[in-house]
Amino acid sequence: MLEVLEELSSYGADPEGGVTRLLYTESWLQAQRALISKMQQLGLESAFDAVGNVFGKLSGSQIALKPVLTGSHVDTVKNGGKYDGAYGVVASMMALGYLKAAYGEPKRTLEAVSFCEEEGSRFPLAYWGSGHVTGARSLAQAAELADPAGVTLLEAMRQAGFNAAGLGEHPAKREQIGAYIELHIEQGSVLTYRHKQIGVVTAIVGQIRLTVHVTGSSNHAGTTPMTMRRDALAGAAEMVTLTEQMALEAGEPLVATVGRLEVRRGTSNVVPGDVTFTLDIRHTDEPEMRTFCVRLLTKLEEIALRRGLTIETVENLHASPVAMHEGISAAIEAACEAVSFPSMRLPSGAGHDAQLFGPICPSAMIFVPSVAGISHSPAEFTEAGDLVAGFQTLVHVLYQFGYGGEADEII
Amino acid sequence: MLEVLEELSSYGADPEGGVTRLLYTESWLQAQRALISKMQQLGLESAFDAVGNVFGKLSGSQIALKPVLTGSHVDTVKNGGKYDGAYGVVASMMALGYLKAAYGEPKRTLEAVSFCEEEGSRFPLAYWGSGHVTGARSLAQAAELADPAGVTLLEAMRQAGFNAAGLGEHPAKREQIGAYIELHIEQGSVLTYRHKQIGVVTAIVGQIRLTVHVTGSSNHAGTTPMTMRRDALAGAAEMVTLTEQMALEAGEPLVATVGRLEVRRGTSNVVPGDVTFTLDIRHTDEPEMRTFCVRLLTKLEEIALRRGLTIETVENLHASPVAMHEGISAAIEAACEAVSFPSMRLPSGAGHDAQLFGPICPSAMIFVPSVAGISHSPAEFTEAGDLVAGFQTLVHVLYQFGYGGEADEII
Repeated sequence: MLEVLEELSSYGADPEGGVTRLLYTESWLQAQRALISKMQQLGLESAFDAVGNVFGKLSGSQIALKPVLTGSHVDTVKNGGKYDGAYGVVASMMALGYLKAAYGEPKRTLEAVSFCEEEGSRFPLAYWGSGHVTGARSLAQAAELADPAGVTLLEAMRQAGFNAAGLGEHPAKREQIGAYIELHIEQGSVLTYRHKQIGVVTAIVGQIRLTVHVTGSSNHAGTTPMTMRRDALAGAAEMVTLTEQMALEAGEPLVATVGRLEVRRGTSNVVPGDVTFTLDIRHTDEPEMRTFCVRLLTKLEEIALRRGLTIETVENLHASPVAMHEGISAAIEAACEAVSFPSMRLPSGAGHDAQLFGPICPSAMIFVPSVAGISHSPAEFTEAGDLVAGFQTLVHVLYQFGYGGEADEII
Repeated sequence: MLEVLEELSSYGADPEGGVTRLLYTESWLQAQRALISKMQQLGLESAFDAVGNVFGKLSGSQIALKPVLTGSHVDTVKNGGKYDGAYGVVASMMALGYLKAAYGEPKRTLEAVSFCEEEGSRFPLAYWGSGHVTGARSLAQAAELADPAGVTLLEAMRQAGFNAAGLGEHPAKREQIGAYIELHIEQGSVLTYRHKQIGVVTAIVGQIRLTVHVTGSSNHAGTTPMTMRRDALAGAAEMVTLTEQMALEAGEPLVATVGRLEVRRGTSNVVPGDVTFTLDIRHTDEPEMRTFCVRLLTKLEEIALRRGLTIETVENLHASPVAMHEGISAAIEAACEAVSFPSMRLPSGAGHDAQLFGPICPSAMIFVPSVAGISHSPAEFTEAGDLVAGFQTLVHVLYQFGYGGEADEII
């Protein structure tokens, strides 16, 4: 599994560092073809679907039982790491290969999947792969979206050999999925900090993203007394501090971040009159997230009012949290218990393909630690021992669901 | 005086708004030549000096008495207003013209001056005009400095007709100046706020300018819990708020401003790890200014330490305050009293040519209100009534010092 993972990272190896493997590009196509080939070697029925996802099926004897899907995404961000998405793809494929070799035909069909795209790193749209499988994405969107070079998603699809003309809006949609299980790196430091090897995801957080525009009065820094100012940056600074305080008081799992702040025409001898900053708020609970947001914005308006500033807020994104399935999560925990992998429950603060599946079937995610929490970088790394532990946990759970019987009540 | 001021604004009128009249350019040369011509019409002996300053002399009968110099600068910032500098130049020239016509030869020589450059808007150096007259600038600097187009100050000087080769480092230096009096717009809102027509400047503030670099750890905004962050922007925000608070507590005339703040690679879903901001601190009292600075920086370091951030501070500028002369200032106040112009004392938060003269001779500044405190902008404006009041005040004081006798004790 580790060798295959290393090999996969050579597709799209970027001379400027890390891996750059973008949807429908040459390196992407080569990677997906290599996976099909490997899956076939492992004895799985493997093929592309209409939009470029790759499936590797291990058919079960009881065809009435809905299949369990397991995998992740094959694309990367620019100069990304070797593990984000790729780990889940390779581990699921190798897990099915191992199970077939060791146990033969399962009762329930198991399918490994390499989703064509998740990151939104080439076109301004994410989850193109899992979105098509679950029905959240449609081909109509492909003609409207273009990459930075002006190539539309539709053209790129065709150039890569996926001509879905005449197949309707959802040519890759799958009905009747029994469950979805995704193995992924944490992309955070909590597992490391708590000395745990396996993370069982409770939910994928919802997100609210806003842009806040604060206007005051730009003035001469020397001739304007402190009491006569309408300093937009001093106001924004108070708002940034308040955001942090309120998030700390709210406690985990809420996070709130000001990641961008720009002072318009910022000059060292001018009192700033125009500042824009972003708010990124995440929580596993939708009402809690909204309430926090409303409370925060109310207080930001109070700050603006007190300081004689104007404030304008625009909501850019509102995605609801997606809870993972308790039954599958408990099974993952039990597997860890059985082989003495220290595990803990935690939310996923980042989006994943699993959030597309959560609303339509029982879903779960298994995390392994990320060294220093680094991701989306060539420095992304997970120790081999942890990669193996995650793999073994996945194999154990897939065995239960594919070959065992107790899973039939769960999913 | 108002007509001549309006006429002067036509030299360098900028199609994009306001006035752009930069040192040694064609419009600058035309403006200075027009001033020489007008001065001659008014009966003043007028000529360029070696670096391009223009003087208009009204010789006094008692040549042992040191001359009183009065004027301002003829250059502007890009898209500047019609009054900043130009008002003092025109008013001083017209004042001498009026005094000569009304009273003939003074006892003490009076000279109007149009300094060639003060703003630093073409070359990275300010006060080229008053600096040469007082000895603070030297020709050696001219070869090292270039404008954005790459033309050196030396080349620009020569192209404008000022070839100072062989004249030594300080070809325009003047010894034995009795006093310097400058009329200028306030570029602030204090006079307006306090319903005063004339401002008598107590001192030109000193300035300390610093750049502060705060480093933390950039991290995923979703997967990094609030308690595990080293957020450089949250830290900088606390520092900005503290700067404002400390300045408010210190009280006038101290001002402290964060005019620029940049989040390196700021992205809405990344906790910022690298922020740089500027500090601009001004006060009329040098020890107070330094003490405030030391206290502030100490507290900024405490904030950084508490938050696990590193902080690096670089001092970019340290200019000492320059006190104006009490005797001249009292004479200005008395003049205002005599003609019922409401006046007040206030510091100048902006730099002026007067700060070059303060250390070498008794100096004073007279301010008139700026509508909405606006300057360095086409929207810069002062009501005609206030321009006239300032002019009349200047005339009154010049009369006392030039024709009267009581001034002889003062300067």
